[in-house]
Amino acid sequence: MGQFHFVTAGESHGKGLVAIVEGMVAGLSLPHEYISRDLKRRQAGYGRSSRMNIEQDEAEIISGVRHGLTIGSPISLVIQNRVWQDWQENMSVAPVDKEVEPVTSPRPGHADLAGAIKYGTEDIRPILERASARETAARVAVGAVARRFLEEFDIAIHSHTICIGNHRAKQREPVDWQQVEGSPVRCADAGAEKAMMTSIDMAKAEGETLGGVFEVIASGVPVGLGSHVQWYRRLDGRIAQAVMSINAVKGVEVGTGFAVANMKGSQAHDIIEPPRQGRALPWRQISNRAGSIEGGMSNGEPIVVRAAVKPIATLGKPLPSVDLSSGEATEAHYERSDICVVPAAGIIGEAMLATTLADAMLEKFGGDHLKETLANYHSYVTSISS
Amino acid sequence: MGQFHFVTAGESHGKGLVAIVEGMVAGLSLPHEYISRDLKRRQAGYGRSSRMNIEQDEAEIISGVRHGLTIGSPISLVIQNRVWQDWQENMSVAPVDKEVEPVTSPRPGHADLAGAIKYGTEDIRPILERASARETAARVAVGAVARRFLEEFDIAIHSHTICIGNHRAKQREPVDWQQVEGSPVRCADAGAEKAMMTSIDMAKAEGETLGGVFEVIASGVPVGLGSHVQWYRRLDGRIAQAVMSINAVKGVEVGTGFAVANMKGSQAHDIIEPPRQGRALPWRQISNRAGSIEGGMSNGEPIVVRAAVKPIATLGKPLPSVDLSSGEATEAHYERSDICVVPAAGIIGEAMLATTLADAMLEKFGGDHLKETLANYHSYVTSISS
Amino acid sequence: MGQFHFVTAGESHGKGLVAIVEGMVAGLSLPHEYISRDLKRRQAGYGRSSRMNIEQDEAEIISGVRHGLTIGSPISLVIQNRVWQDWQENMSVAPVDKEVEPVTSPRPGHADLAGAIKYGTEDIRPILERASARETAARVAVGAVARRFLEEFDIAIHSHTICIGNHRAKQREPVDWQQVEGSPVRCADAGAEKAMMTSIDMAKAEGETLGGVFEVIASGVPVGLGSHVQWYRRLDGRIAQAVMSINAVKGVEVGTGFAVANMKGSQAHDIIEPPRQGRALPWRQISNRAGSIEGGMSNGEPIVVRAAVKPIATLGKPLPSVDLSSGEATEAHYERSDICVVPAAGIIGEAMLATTLADAMLEKFGGDHLKETLANYHSYVTSISS
Amino acid sequence: MGQFHFVTAGESHGKGLVAIVEGMVAGLSLPHEYISRDLKRRQAGYGRSSRMNIEQDEAEIISGVRHGLTIGSPISLVIQNRVWQDWQENMSVAPVDKEVEPVTSPRPGHADLAGAIKYGTEDIRPILERASARETAARVAVGAVARRFLEEFDIAIHSHTICIGNHRAKQREPVDWQQVEGSPVRCADAGAEKAMMTSIDMAKAEGETLGGVFEVIASGVPVGLGSHVQWYRRLDGRIAQAVMSINAVKGVEVGTGFAVANMKGSQAHDIIEPPRQGRALPWRQISNRAGSIEGGMSNGEPIVVRAAVKPIATLGKPLPSVDLSSGEATEAHYERSDICVVPAAGIIGEAMLATTLADAMLEKFGGDHLKETLANYHSYVTSISS
Repeated sequence: MGQFHFVTAGESHGKGLVAIVEGMVAGLSLPHEYISRDLKRRQAGYGRSSRMNIEQDEAEIISGVRHGLTIGSPISLVIQNRVWQDWQENMSVAPVDKEVEPVTSPRPGHADLAGAIKYGTEDIRPILERASARETAARVAVGAVARRFLEEFDIAIHSHTICIGNHRAKQREPVDWQQVEGSPVRCADAGAEKAMMTSIDMAKAEGETLGGVFEVIASGVPVGLGSHVQWYRRLDGRIAQAVMSINAVKGVEVGTGFAVANMKGSQAHDIIEPPRQGRALPWRQISNRAGSIEGGMSNGEPIVVRAAVKPIATLGKPLPSVDLSSGEATEAHYERSDICVVPAAGIIGEAMLATTLADAMLEKFGGDHLKETLANYHSYVTSISS
Repeated sequence: MGQFHFVTAGESHGKGLVAIVEGMVAGLSLPHEYISRDLKRRQAGYGRSSRMNIEQDEAEIISGVRHGLTIGSPISLVIQNRVWQDWQENMSVAPVDKEVEPVTSPRPGHADLAGAIKYGTEDIRPILERASARETAARVAVGAVARRFLEEFDIAIHSHTICIGNHRAKQREPVDWQQVEGSPVRCADAGAEKAMMTSIDMAKAEGETLGGVFEVIASGVPVGLGSHVQWYRRLDGRIAQAVMSINAVKGVEVGTGFAVANMKGSQAHDIIEPPRQGRALPWRQISNRAGSIEGGMSNGEPIVVRAAVKPIATLGKPLPSVDLSSGEATEAHYERSDICVVPAAGIIGEAMLATTLADAMLEKFGGDHLKETLANYHSYVTSISS
Repeated sequence: MGQFHFVTAGESHGKGLVAIVEGMVAGLSLPHEYISRDLKRRQAGYGRSSRMNIEQDEAEIISGVRHGLTIGSPISLVIQNRVWQDWQENMSVAPVDKEVEPVTSPRPGHADLAGAIKYGTEDIRPILERASARETAARVAVGAVARRFLEEFDIAIHSHTICIGNHRAKQREPVDWQQVEGSPVRCADAGAEKAMMTSIDMAKAEGETLGGVFEVIASGVPVGLGSHVQWYRRLDGRIAQAVMSINAVKGVEVGTGFAVANMKGSQAHDIIEPPRQGRALPWRQISNRAGSIEGGMSNGEPIVVRAAVKPIATLGKPLPSVDLSSGEATEAHYERSDICVVPAAGIIGEAMLATTLADAMLEKFGGDHLKETLANYHSYVTSISS
Repeated sequence: MGQFHFVTAGESHGKGLVAIVEGMVAGLSLPHEYISRDLKRRQAGYGRSSRMNIEQDEAEIISGVRHGLTIGSPISLVIQNRVWQDWQENMSVAPVDKEVEPVTSPRPGHADLAGAIKYGTEDIRPILERASARETAARVAVGAVARRFLEEFDIAIHSHTICIGNHRAKQREPVDWQQVEGSPVRCADAGAEKAMMTSIDMAKAEGETLGGVFEVIASGVPVGLGSHVQWYRRLDGRIAQAVMSINAVKGVEVGTGFAVANMKGSQAHDIIEPPRQGRALPWRQISNRAGSIEGGMSNGEPIVVRAAVKPIATLGKPLPSVDLSSGEATEAHYERSDICVVPAAGIIGEAMLATTLADAMLEKFGGDHLKETLANYHSYVTSISS
């Protein structure tokens, strides 16, 4: 755990989500709307459930910010649960008189069964409440803080949908981020977008769900974040943990990723060219097959990460399961859910990449006030460009 | 960083590698040969350079073991560099009188350029020495300690080669591990094995290198390692960091991995079945599409992880680069190297999965002497099976 | 940072305090009143300011507890600031139109000057708000969670006042904890109690403040928490950090502490005696000069820790200072404050010892549900008593 | 655990000690003699056993340094055990044929009994070997690396003996460090020095041991190391852990320490004065009662830490103990030992303060090459002095 880190708390149908961000510098402008924007982006996306419309998440900043600027103290955020009134009894912190019906049929593909066994409970409710992807709203709020910080260094983070189900987007460089933000599935290829949306409609009709692949790109990252010197300091490893920790992600790749396995050495790397005028760095590797990461460090090119998202495990047509009380075969518990979360997962991927980079930036540049960190950063950038 | 953790030190052509393992229980039998065996497995593999023959790594245990048993103290290991005598001047700890020629042409795809910029050096030698995959010998030695511990809980970890270049093995369940251990490319498919070896020969002739994919499988893992409750406690995230941190790995996937992106929900998960006789657990998910991990926890099935390995970046036919002193175009520095490291990378993958699981086991079961950890483990297994 | 850890957030006059506790087992009964009781104990104490009467802190549990039992998820707590309405403009998260008067004269002995310089601010307000001992209310709430857990293992934690100003209590073994809880200065010596209270009255009249020494005792701690094997795992070191981190603490000692420096070896240690009937452990060291800690581990006797608390730095008769804007000599900023916080500091000391021991217990015994941790604990206790 | 951290390994009579230092910047000159000097200082001191003469510890740098300069990689150190040949069988890593006599009578005041119970061994040998203060040689070697780094920022760390047994030195400001280094008991008061040495002679004759108090002072520390924002980031807490973790230390205090408990508020703090010419900082607190730490941060004055050292627990006239096999009363095991380790403990205190400050410096200033960290440091110092 580095200088910048965060923890979240909160159950899906509890009072709300809480996050504490430790290690952010003082002096950073942090408008409330900034966080709201990302929370809204997470809630959008074709294929989300109706819950997304109900909620319109808002993160209230409780501490760490005064008169619009961070003060160096831990930043705490609370996202109220808008439907808490319906769950006050079921999810009451205090004991309740009435018996609350337990959930006893675990959903395949969820934390339900492993969690119930690990935490010694026959009622799956306490497990599924925390394992729910609702928790990622807190991550996105934290990610917005990290993103705000990174912006001061001209680091920008975007995501887009690469595929949903069998429909893969044609990729063009550079990605048109404006088009992505306008797309219901966050896809820059209008043709694929249409096919993806049709797939989602069909999946919904069939009681099915769909997965896919999203890509996150961070541009403006300086050379030398992370380090080759110790296994746990490698930036790609840290990114991999952060992204794999997103609910439903089953694979993470950097740069060319799995496709590199089939390439020859001469095709797999980015040749180094002599300096050209107008470049920040004396030497650059323009093909960016590495997705910026070489030897566990950023090389100055955009960081490119992709993640595979499985079709979510709560199906309208529930999967076979077992009742934990009776031991009899049954159907999995059904809880209102989405059809496809790939677009939302991309936003969460942005958040996790942002927090990882904020940590790596503070590790390299130190500082307690933004102006100090910026001065250190500029001093480094100047020294390596000359 | 959990209860069980390790650090390594050492340069490729320095005096040797050093590792310290903290948090291993007392009372574990740790024969020296056990570590040697994995070091030897790492050195084997069709496509390794001649250096592998020279070295025959041996890890000397300096501390933490007495009369064949661990004592609870940190276990330190030293792997001497067998060719140190040739490098005493170049890699001398003390200043030397004679000038040592610097390395100034960074190899694309390596830590060389990013590392030289980050660490403020024009001579790339200090960077490439630590970034070299030679460091993974220390990881493999540490991994053998973790593996020895896991064996006491009937957890076994194996790896095999899934593809090299364009040749993909046909996979059969269960994998014939004996055949894998006998295969020069660690592949259980004899047909693919032959094609892979031919490819390696051809790549060598062309001054090329080859990548591929390896798979690591851990069987016998109990339900409930890792946790869904906090992002950095999720087992898949921790595994992803550990495996992505291996040199040349560009992608990591668990279970169905990237292929899950194209599946429908009803095909992507493992249905839960009622208890049958003779099973350790009341309910099991036999298809194991999840690769054991659901909600960031192990579910009792074998953990299945795959990683994409890029063709290594040191080519016989060097890539275009730039001389850091003159700024002129040149060829990348050439240092004796391998053609294909996929089989060896699998062994390193085993080590990283082993250390991750040892940490997760100690986190869940605690204990300072093996008998205590075992008692806690058996108590848990009994309680969840009844 | 171990399995059990916590972070706090919140400014003294902000919206409130927030804490997240990570790593607590499931199945622990956690009544709300339990936390309230310790918060109330912290607020009591002869010598506290009138603010203590206003507030009557209550910690609202936001997550991690359902129907009175912990569920293994992070426990988040919010303590609302009861005077927030008076500070909404001064401590607004959002920018405000009206100018808010800055604090520019740092108080000697506080974080004010060092904090303002470190965090690059001329207005000391953001520093003093977080550095305020108000933050310890969050620690006490977290400590109550840890204490509740430890109770299940028959570990009890108490504190009492050893001295205030020049008045030192006569110590009797065992301490009468009921008397301590009834004492306005938390002192078991009625004579000293009276003198302490008179001193506080006098100090108040003089615009002065008073310090003192408190002692925290944890009984029922099993043999073998902490470890000698690595410097940062030693229990006394971990306790020392936890207690020294309390505002105004300038010294920490264990067992005989500083007095041991003047003893001879034959007087300084606890001789070991053969087993007697009716004892939990085969061998015990009854004199407890070690305060339980030998070799960085608990030895089964009560842990005894004392801490020196300085007279708080906000004086009614302000100390000389300098105006940070003008550079001119001035008086230190005055903010409503206490005369003597030693009794309250003892409660915070209990909390910090409780969290340290909860971490050490979970490190040794593992477990995700209370029943699992208890089973592991009992198995260990049985094995070492036979 | 911060950016700069270290682990040690090794048993007292094993092959040797090993340490790995992670996070040191590149470009630092690190002469071998520099480490040797501190190792020698640790071995000196009136009252050490004859073992100290035998050994003359030397730390061999295995990695992380090339041609006299650090390279950013982990620095590993090995200190060979000079009497290993006598212990090869007793402490053999491999099983031995001959039976080795176990140690079964635990020494009061040592890790022996608690360690044997915790780690489930009836033979105390494996415990006492690691718990031995011999391990601190590795800490001193690591501390020398940290000290070398701090020197580049004009931070100097010294220690001296404040008392041994009943003899307390008269303290003069500033301490004459040259006299301390020449004193056999590391005491600047010649009168007290003589009395201390006589006490040690008498204790030796009586089969006794003596404790005392040492003081460590770090000058040149910039304002703003550590932080008030989170309990575990407070510098005094981190120092307290580091110093309390030294074998035989039972108390730690900063600045006025325990004596502050009896002071009034107006006497306990350091008033702040307007700027004077020729000062590094605009405002200073010249009395330094705080020992530099206010609000968990350094305030620019010298950090002053004192620690109480107990008389070591291995007595020539052994204390009553119990045989762990028979349960019968016996005398504690005797192993060649020292009479008084206070002077040596001061050197270890320097090392632990140095590593803590190196970590805090890198946390604040970042950087991967010394020149980068220095530039960031100077930029900060300039900005706060103007």
